[in-house]
Amino acid sequence: AGDAEAGKAKAAVCAACHGADGVAMIPGYPNLKGQNEQYLVSALKAYKNKERNGGMAAVMQPQAAMLSDTDMVNVAAYFSQMK
Amino acid sequence: AGDAEAGKAKAAVCAACHGADGVAMIPGYPNLKGQNEQYLVSALKAYKNKERNGGMAAVMQPQAAMLSDTDMVNVAAYFSQMK
Repeated sequence: AGDAEAGKAKAAVCAACHGADGVAMIPGYPNLKGQNEQYLVSALKAYKNKERNGGMAAVMQPQAAMLSDTDMVNVAAYFSQMK
Repeated sequence: AGDAEAGKAKAAVCAACHGADGVAMIPGYPNLKGQNEQYLVSALKAYKNKERNGGMAAVMQPQAAMLSDTDMVNVAAYFSQMK
């Protein structure tokens, strides 16, 4: 599992759209609160690898590209442990 | 918004992986409980249009392909209204 504390620092930029509490700012974005860590990592990787397109991929691909594998696991841990 | 009752009937097959209660069977799949309806529709469309690849897209694309636009909105309403 990732380090949620380290993830919190990395997740500041995510909060702008996904909410500091993991509840998305607009209904077109997904809530991340309580989402499965492993799924979040696979989604971030699919954006980073440009496998995920459509929807808000144009925004998410560059965001994911800035994250290392460790960052991804930590950010995913941070949102998944939110209750 | 979609018709959650109609969505429930369509969502039987989804429950096999995403859980009848919207909590995924394995951590690699996303929980859908309480997710934003509009986001779920955009994800399903991206799978149907084969824009979303990577992760479990190989499973999700044929599933989404079987859904009409109305089905998608109804299934999305069903999961998003889950508390």
